[in-house]
Amino acid sequence: MKNMLEGIEEVLLMGPGPSCVPPEVYSALGRKTLGHLDPYFLRIMDELKGMLRAIMNTKNELTIPISGTGSAGMEASFVNLVEPGDRVLILINGVFGVRMREVASRLGANVDAIEFTWGTPVVPEVVGKRLKQETYRIVAVVHAETSTGVRNPVAEIGSLLKGSDTLYLVDTVTSLGGIEVRMDDWGIDALYSGTQKCLSCPPGLAPLSFSDKAMARLKGRRTKVPNWYLDLSLIASYWGKDRVYHHTAPVNMIYGLYQALLIILEEGLEKVFARHRQNHLLLVRGFDEMGLKMLVEEPYRLPMLNTVLCPGEVNELSLRRCLRSDYRIEIGGGLGPLAGKIWRVGLMGHTARKESVERLLSALRKLMG
Amino acid sequence: MKNMLEGIEEVLLMGPGPSCVPPEVYSALGRKTLGHLDPYFLRIMDELKGMLRAIMNTKNELTIPISGTGSAGMEASFVNLVEPGDRVLILINGVFGVRMREVASRLGANVDAIEFTWGTPVVPEVVGKRLKQETYRIVAVVHAETSTGVRNPVAEIGSLLKGSDTLYLVDTVTSLGGIEVRMDDWGIDALYSGTQKCLSCPPGLAPLSFSDKAMARLKGRRTKVPNWYLDLSLIASYWGKDRVYHHTAPVNMIYGLYQALLIILEEGLEKVFARHRQNHLLLVRGFDEMGLKMLVEEPYRLPMLNTVLCPGEVNELSLRRCLRSDYRIEIGGGLGPLAGKIWRVGLMGHTARKESVERLLSALRKLMG
Repeated sequence: MKNMLEGIEEVLLMGPGPSCVPPEVYSALGRKTLGHLDPYFLRIMDELKGMLRAIMNTKNELTIPISGTGSAGMEASFVNLVEPGDRVLILINGVFGVRMREVASRLGANVDAIEFTWGTPVVPEVVGKRLKQETYRIVAVVHAETSTGVRNPVAEIGSLLKGSDTLYLVDTVTSLGGIEVRMDDWGIDALYSGTQKCLSCPPGLAPLSFSDKAMARLKGRRTKVPNWYLDLSLIASYWGKDRVYHHTAPVNMIYGLYQALLIILEEGLEKVFARHRQNHLLLVRGFDEMGLKMLVEEPYRLPMLNTVLCPGEVNELSLRRCLRSDYRIEIGGGLGPLAGKIWRVGLMGHTARKESVERLLSALRKLMG
Repeated sequence: MKNMLEGIEEVLLMGPGPSCVPPEVYSALGRKTLGHLDPYFLRIMDELKGMLRAIMNTKNELTIPISGTGSAGMEASFVNLVEPGDRVLILINGVFGVRMREVASRLGANVDAIEFTWGTPVVPEVVGKRLKQETYRIVAVVHAETSTGVRNPVAEIGSLLKGSDTLYLVDTVTSLGGIEVRMDDWGIDALYSGTQKCLSCPPGLAPLSFSDKAMARLKGRRTKVPNWYLDLSLIASYWGKDRVYHHTAPVNMIYGLYQALLIILEEGLEKVFARHRQNHLLLVRGFDEMGLKMLVEEPYRLPMLNTVLCPGEVNELSLRRCLRSDYRIEIGGGLGPLAGKIWRVGLMGHTARKESVERLLSALRKLMG
């Protein structure tokens, strides 16, 4: 049987994730596997927790990678904090807000949603008005809406919740490592992310952090978490001092994430954010010169996820296929109501380099010129 | 900051998993990441499904790796098939049977259990008697009990269920790739495994297969699966012809599993099983010569997971620590009622080699001589 892995070509990953992976991270994935209770591996786990805290700007003890992809982080956050009948408010302006509503509803939450037009941000004043009328156990929002390219005002929403009993749950799958995330300052109680976006590690883990307030809610549950695999009270015993076996940690993926975080912290968060911003501006200027229009108004644009309108005369799917086959570049299409109307161009982590922007713009000029 | 990954030493992994990983699998993990909807990656996924079917001896369409470790396979099997109040029978003779009871109970199942002494197998006659008295929606058992080293009579239990409406759920985490697993012939409806045992791939994925009968049960649910991340009807749309995005697949782990399966199929299943058996017999003979007694009676022993009684005069934990620090060999201790009383010696996949057995026996002779 032919080994298909030998035919894998390097593709410039400029879609909504996974992003390009630095060579050191590929090497890390292939380091020798250690046991999940090996003393040396336990030290690697401890350092990894410290690096995640630095990138999330949190002091939370429970700051760990969940053994699943970014969506497992969403599932873990809700399943540990929601009990049947709990009132939950989801702020929706894209696919991942819709997904939050679905996840919470399946767990028996009593879900309210405030919906905002896709491509525009959540408006804190609207949220504040609702919070004066109603009380919720959880308010949840996506920081960087990967489906639209919009940055939501996470800090402002957090300030509306300060001093209340409400838990604040934030999806930072696409933002973490690309723009500032200040978990403690912004009053976030449950935060999750994914490895395959601005952290530049292949998909497979979901960094997650719970505040003391979230841990207290978990400990005070009336019912057991209806998901043994993602029960954070059990997982915390493995990642904490007790080292109680729960499930076998994905050792080599943890090596990869360790290396990816080390690279980011060695470059320095400020420099990393500036690099994302500069390359975003370069890309937008290039689009502008080609007469392409951005979906999102300037103040709300994400640097790492650029949504651009596909001109009416262009077949958006054919162009993407051609980019992949002839130029070995991947970009994304639109989801839901934006399908067929936009392209999503990722500048995440290791992809956020001048060479990536120039290679894409050059290819687009040839294909659309 | 010092990069701890550079200090990782190769350890001979002879515990209850993870097992040793062949060099080709380490290389596969570091292949260039492709997008989770990339046309070439989709072809790799299709071939992977075919290889999983060959190792499981099934024709089931839904035969895929779940994006989580082995325990995520257990969670996925139960959460998709159990609805609140469903009568479930769990056959328990070790930690992983106990875990099944916990997982099913948290999902609202009405769980009965038949418990057998740890270290002895499930007795089909006892199960048959119960099945004449009671009707269950699901009967579940662990094929290879990793906590005790016992092989359960999965085929015999399956024959008791043939022709009934009951679904048969089997854990093959430790057995798959080390002893024969015949999913279709044995009437298994839901089967899951892990990558880090006899498949010799690092932990991180859970191969899983559902029969048509299990899929019909899933489609006929009165309630939505209370776990969006593991909803197999959604996951099947991604792994099937529709390719509907659900979550971002763990691309590089899938490369690793692809390579690991290819190695097994190229060696040939019969040869792989014989190699496990030969090295098991070599190990048992060595233990015998040292006066060490096996926990499990000969007919029920697993070749890949050998449980041996720790002599009263030996400190079992000190010996394990010494093996790790001075000989770079990992073996496992006992769990639950067997803690402190036994060692668990894995001969799984790439670990099942004469050199492993000889290196361990030589070290033990020095430490206990």
